[in-house]
Amino acid sequence: MARIVQKFGGTSVGDVGRIKNAARRVKCEIDRGNQVAVVVSAMAGTTNQLIEWTRLTSRLHDAREYDVVVCSGEQVTAGLLALALQDLEIDARSWLGWQIPIRTDGVHGKARIKAIEVEEMRRRLTRGQVPVVAGFQGVSPRGRITTLGRGGSDTSAVALAAALEADRCDIFTDVDGVYTSDPRIVAKARKLSRITYEEMLEMASQGASVLQTRSVEMAMNHRVRVQVLSSFTEAPGTLVVDEDEIVEKRVVSGIAYSRDEAKITVQRVADRPGVAAAIFGPLADDAINVDMIVQSASDDGRTADLTFTVARTDLDRAVSVLERGRNTIGFAALKPDPDVVKISVIGIGMRSHAGVASRMFQTLADKGINIQVISTSEIKVSVLIAAEYTELALRTLHTAYGLDAAG
Amino acid sequence: MARIVQKFGGTSVGDVGRIKNAARRVKCEIDRGNQVAVVVSAMAGTTNQLIEWTRLTSRLHDAREYDVVVCSGEQVTAGLLALALQDLEIDARSWLGWQIPIRTDGVHGKARIKAIEVEEMRRRLTRGQVPVVAGFQGVSPRGRITTLGRGGSDTSAVALAAALEADRCDIFTDVDGVYTSDPRIVAKARKLSRITYEEMLEMASQGASVLQTRSVEMAMNHRVRVQVLSSFTEAPGTLVVDEDEIVEKRVVSGIAYSRDEAKITVQRVADRPGVAAAIFGPLADDAINVDMIVQSASDDGRTADLTFTVARTDLDRAVSVLERGRNTIGFAALKPDPDVVKISVIGIGMRSHAGVASRMFQTLADKGINIQVISTSEIKVSVLIAAEYTELALRTLHTAYGLDAAG
Repeated sequence: MARIVQKFGGTSVGDVGRIKNAARRVKCEIDRGNQVAVVVSAMAGTTNQLIEWTRLTSRLHDAREYDVVVCSGEQVTAGLLALALQDLEIDARSWLGWQIPIRTDGVHGKARIKAIEVEEMRRRLTRGQVPVVAGFQGVSPRGRITTLGRGGSDTSAVALAAALEADRCDIFTDVDGVYTSDPRIVAKARKLSRITYEEMLEMASQGASVLQTRSVEMAMNHRVRVQVLSSFTEAPGTLVVDEDEIVEKRVVSGIAYSRDEAKITVQRVADRPGVAAAIFGPLADDAINVDMIVQSASDDGRTADLTFTVARTDLDRAVSVLERGRNTIGFAALKPDPDVVKISVIGIGMRSHAGVASRMFQTLADKGINIQVISTSEIKVSVLIAAEYTELALRTLHTAYGLDAAG
Repeated sequence: MARIVQKFGGTSVGDVGRIKNAARRVKCEIDRGNQVAVVVSAMAGTTNQLIEWTRLTSRLHDAREYDVVVCSGEQVTAGLLALALQDLEIDARSWLGWQIPIRTDGVHGKARIKAIEVEEMRRRLTRGQVPVVAGFQGVSPRGRITTLGRGGSDTSAVALAAALEADRCDIFTDVDGVYTSDPRIVAKARKLSRITYEEMLEMASQGASVLQTRSVEMAMNHRVRVQVLSSFTEAPGTLVVDEDEIVEKRVVSGIAYSRDEAKITVQRVADRPGVAAAIFGPLADDAINVDMIVQSASDDGRTADLTFTVARTDLDRAVSVLERGRNTIGFAALKPDPDVVKISVIGIGMRSHAGVASRMFQTLADKGINIQVISTSEIKVSVLIAAEYTELALRTLHTAYGLDAAG
């Protein structure tokens, strides 16, 4: 007998028919003799509607009231799924964040879970009752409702799985697993049966976002085995696990990309100490995250060009910040460029295998694709290229690293 | 300075524009220097949608989960109205039933309020903060969400006004007050500036339902002055108050009607002790309420005919119950008749004025309207007549009792 947390995302509970389908997926595990705790998202579209209402109602943004409004969607789904389970003759009851309670800090709109009190739930699980937990929500030290940020239900599920010491946390979503690359672009992409937490983190933060990044971090920290799968098929999904559990080691597991990038080149800054701080300090003060950075000698030999990337949505703001600091920084020109994409080769095997990066550079060079910026981590190599080469780069690299599906 | 509870019904908060309008009505009272606590219903249509989902999801009806789902509408409105008030630079925060808490019994779906802990809210009111309370909901002794039944937000408002010792409870709804009769039928109906609790109770339970009956009972018991008014006009509404506060005494205050009636005649039952019990016992066992009853000698002189009314929705069920008991009861025939209406003349002045009933009977007789059943209370005379005479009876009685608007 295993204890399993099942989490159903917005499309998996998008209407009454799908809620009934989710109930059947729960029943399958119950019929196998397992204990099941369920975490639910709001019905697809609901949360966006609620957010829209808060925007239309007030020019101000009181995150405490925002949380009261937007958390209601998960509450509805929790009640309905409990009813649907009862209809299948399964003992079930809903739990809201404040009822368990799921204690969070007081940062409304993106609260962090501090503790989950699961004693009562554990007793009921042993009796065969299925708890249906409203995801995305908790309660602050002041007794007000908090929410965990977009995609927070994944985090609710992993945190609950950790607290309940569950054997597995199944995340039902609208894709049936994690692929070696985006199947919409790379037709030969394959579903991975297993992936490590570290790789999943890189995949998620590189734009192949299947799971919320924070939920993967939490799973890694608490060693929660997470399975990503579809509620609409019976096929097994992708298991996100510890490195020890990966039998067949691969050097590269996947090729990810992110279009949410923009490049800024600051031309001919003085090549002297403190100039980087003069550029990046004001950006940080304005809460603009800088990702990749490269500095190169300028044509004149006395100055340098500094190129870096920010989120595309921050581009205009970053340019304003730098223009305001022009006199302090001292530069000849600013060149913003939103037409870039970041391509990343990800694999735990890079730790022990050399030559992964050079194969990437060579492969791209063979196709005439110019690399604008490079960054690397222990298990990842990322390059920034012109956006128009996205598909070509992804498909070529996918083949080059031997990831293509057979046949 | 006064302390006022304002309650906004579903149409008064039906969309974001109307929520902003409600916020402006709150601001008017604040600008007058008053303390205001607000109670809100769900946006019009929301609760019906939620109820529909629970019905579609499960053949069973777990009232605890039903409550979790249906109470979410008021939660959304509470958060949004708090935001709208903040947008008008008014300090406001939402309160859910469990946060205050509003303690109820454990009868899910139609819980009764046991206590409201208002100390904290009172402190904040004194500081000028506006609490925005989600109506219709409370928390059970087991810590689960309860709801108060249809129209329960009126009860929330009156209970809160009582707990806060408010000077007035304003109920904003889609009508602008209580009329002497239904203005859609009686063109000369007048808006009453004041009405007693007792009259309002009779008006409400007789089908002129502006306020939930239970909220009027609660207002009467706690002497809460209630005003019924529209959020869409500036006109003053109708004040529901104690008899002492009515300056201009009227004999009759209004003519109400109810189409939610059906008549059953049990023909030729034995005229012996115990026969009424044999008929009404099984109906009560089946939770069918009987309203008016009349017994008359039958044509043959040895038996009696028994006529009574039930809610129209209970008619078929009542007939089945009686048919099943036919042998025990002993009767010749059952005559069900759904085409009836109950017309009631209501007025606190009846206590001291004779002749109210006889004027009613004479007026109807003059128009050739046959009275099928009669029932009376201290401040009300009701008659059952054929439904086709509804309009004629209402208009004629309205004139006969001198209620017509001038001009």
